[in-house]
Amino acid sequence: MLASEIRALFAVASRPEVVSLAGGMPNIAGLPLDAVGDVLAKVLADRGQVALQYGSGQGDPALREQICDVMALEGIRAHADDVVITVGSQQGLDLVTRIFCDPGDVVLAEAPSYVGALSVFRSYQAEVVHVAMDDDGLRPDDLRAAIGQLEQGLRRPKLLYTVPNFHNPAGVSMARERRAEVLEICQAAGVIVIEDNPYGLLGFDAEPTPALRSLDDGVIYLGSFSKTFAPGFRVGWVTAPHGVRDKLVLAAEASVLCPPTFSQLAVSTYLATEPWQQQIKSFQEMYRERRDALLTALDDMFPPGAVWTRPAGGFYVWATMPAGLDTKAMLPRAVTARVAYVPGTAFYADGSGASSLRLSYCYPTPERIREGVRRLADVIAGELDLLETFGGPDRVRRPMRARPQAPAPDTA
Amino acid sequence: MLASEIRALFAVASRPEVVSLAGGMPNIAGLPLDAVGDVLAKVLADRGQVALQYGSGQGDPALREQICDVMALEGIRAHADDVVITVGSQQGLDLVTRIFCDPGDVVLAEAPSYVGALSVFRSYQAEVVHVAMDDDGLRPDDLRAAIGQLEQGLRRPKLLYTVPNFHNPAGVSMARERRAEVLEICQAAGVIVIEDNPYGLLGFDAEPTPALRSLDDGVIYLGSFSKTFAPGFRVGWVTAPHGVRDKLVLAAEASVLCPPTFSQLAVSTYLATEPWQQQIKSFQEMYRERRDALLTALDDMFPPGAVWTRPAGGFYVWATMPAGLDTKAMLPRAVTARVAYVPGTAFYADGSGASSLRLSYCYPTPERIREGVRRLADVIAGELDLLETFGGPDRVRRPMRARPQAPAPDTA
Repeated sequence: MLASEIRALFAVASRPEVVSLAGGMPNIAGLPLDAVGDVLAKVLADRGQVALQYGSGQGDPALREQICDVMALEGIRAHADDVVITVGSQQGLDLVTRIFCDPGDVVLAEAPSYVGALSVFRSYQAEVVHVAMDDDGLRPDDLRAAIGQLEQGLRRPKLLYTVPNFHNPAGVSMARERRAEVLEICQAAGVIVIEDNPYGLLGFDAEPTPALRSLDDGVIYLGSFSKTFAPGFRVGWVTAPHGVRDKLVLAAEASVLCPPTFSQLAVSTYLATEPWQQQIKSFQEMYRERRDALLTALDDMFPPGAVWTRPAGGFYVWATMPAGLDTKAMLPRAVTARVAYVPGTAFYADGSGASSLRLSYCYPTPERIREGVRRLADVIAGELDLLETFGGPDRVRRPMRARPQAPAPDTA
Repeated sequence: MLASEIRALFAVASRPEVVSLAGGMPNIAGLPLDAVGDVLAKVLADRGQVALQYGSGQGDPALREQICDVMALEGIRAHADDVVITVGSQQGLDLVTRIFCDPGDVVLAEAPSYVGALSVFRSYQAEVVHVAMDDDGLRPDDLRAAIGQLEQGLRRPKLLYTVPNFHNPAGVSMARERRAEVLEICQAAGVIVIEDNPYGLLGFDAEPTPALRSLDDGVIYLGSFSKTFAPGFRVGWVTAPHGVRDKLVLAAEASVLCPPTFSQLAVSTYLATEPWQQQIKSFQEMYRERRDALLTALDDMFPPGAVWTRPAGGFYVWATMPAGLDTKAMLPRAVTARVAYVPGTAFYADGSGASSLRLSYCYPTPERIREGVRRLADVIAGELDLLETFGGPDRVRRPMRARPQAPAPDTA
């Protein structure tokens, strides 16, 4: 199983001597713990009996109002009635998929796509059809082609799942001028759009691009405080059209009764009493510095023939190696060399991505990032030497595949 | 929809002038908020960077060890590896059902059964077959009969869902001597047993009865801190056999990535630093006093022909009215008379329970409980007068059904 492989990888990669460019954990070291402590004390002092009790299945009404203010930063005008608070946006995606997908239904998703979304679609036995991206995000021509091909087989995709801003794992964003076109294509084909936007406010250079949801009230929008505040409270949300909202609340209640009240009031009080927009700016600065460190190191050290994206926000760079290099087979050697990444195949439902990998710059310091790239570039150079010596991808790939896939530092 | 009806009911019943015998909210007023504040401050001071970050999908290892100590109070010997922490035990039930049940599968459940469990089974399109109870809980003879009847139709139930201690809503417990028999019947028939035990430590009179899981490692056990500490953190757990545990972790990760880290460390620190067993004793005392108030009031004021259970723990009394009285049709009149309960039909998948109702004694004070029973007894007396005047259940029931089902205080 993919998830267990990733778990094994993370177990090794979490050792302090390994530079992990693998995980997507936000760098909450930048969060002022004193201020958070004040927030928690205030929650307990002012509303302790509420915070420790069961709450509404849809989520705290005041927090839902505040979420509308957060979404307004990306051009969304929504009513608090249409917001459903979830246990992270992951639960939002889980519930939406449960509502819409029967086994065998088709979900369109970018190529590559978020690994946690692929897990959800797999768990509901939905079939994922990937749609190509370029530097401007999801390609409308390929979206049209994918829908057309499905229609020829008399199948209509149920959902398009997209991460339009600072894509995980691709590191690109959907260009502003493409957004209306993507929505039109989906509307014409009767495909529901799910916009997953955890990184939208973590852009480095410009004002946020208007969300898909700001252009079309039919879009199901997934939001999260995990990257703009802290993931440990597990507070995300879904903004859904009215008819979907009711089903969503019923599904959420069946799933967890209600989201954690204490977490919700903590986030709500944080938004009400702390300079949260300033905190987001400080996160942006921190991540920008790390992004710069990663891109500079890649420019300096990665081999000719490798290509990578240049993200304008978020956490991730997507790199593709010269043909023939298998990033999954290479991973144990990289971990032995004390650097970790996530192999590209994790982000595809169809086994693609073998020569790509995801590099996260969110967590290590700039110096460690540079050191990690140095180690990784060495490992890649060794692989490419092997490839050249043995004359081609086919001859080399087979023995590499026979090696153990899980990181095994004692033997590798 | 049932859930939305209950929501509408709770909205009215939550008005301060209404004595609510409807909700199952634990009475956390007995919890020392100062001590909880110390716990939260300690979590942030000692492990802030961990508490605010993503955590493991299976849950915090230290908390899973502590949970084994909690379960040992009911005779369970389990390893922390087999514990999966969930967003309340509701999520545990949701994930277990997702793993085992395909649409059309049969789940056995007590008659009546927990309304939140019925919602889960409905959401996975499982068919619920009820098994009768008496004052000693689930009846083994009826369990055997239900399985036999299904087998004649070449169907085998997948699961038995049972709340053996201080049953919600029935208020009875499965007798110690029945437990092994129920397990044997299920083992012989290949039926997996799910033991849902949120109230096991809230008995009033005696030491806890050994859990089903203490007799059979194959039982899937659902636990919760919602009634022994506080529901607002949403921390529950599943103790599962090894093979199920792996699937459960994968399903949990797909569903919410990880349970809220802050909540988990709060519960873990509470267990490590506060006298939690003493707190449970104080909860027991409070609930015992309220149980006594309810039973005394029922003895004094409920009409001849009504019968009810006499719980030895937990939150609930199950009362059945003289034949012909429809508790759902009566509810708007009860709410108008400023008392609320949950009609019996909510606890059956098959429409039974029309003359029964659930009374919760956990939340109101003893004085309010007595006042609530007084109001309810008046409403019941009025209904019985009507029944007598119009000569029988059939003639009376029809016009009552035509009335609006949702509480409508302006018109009722």
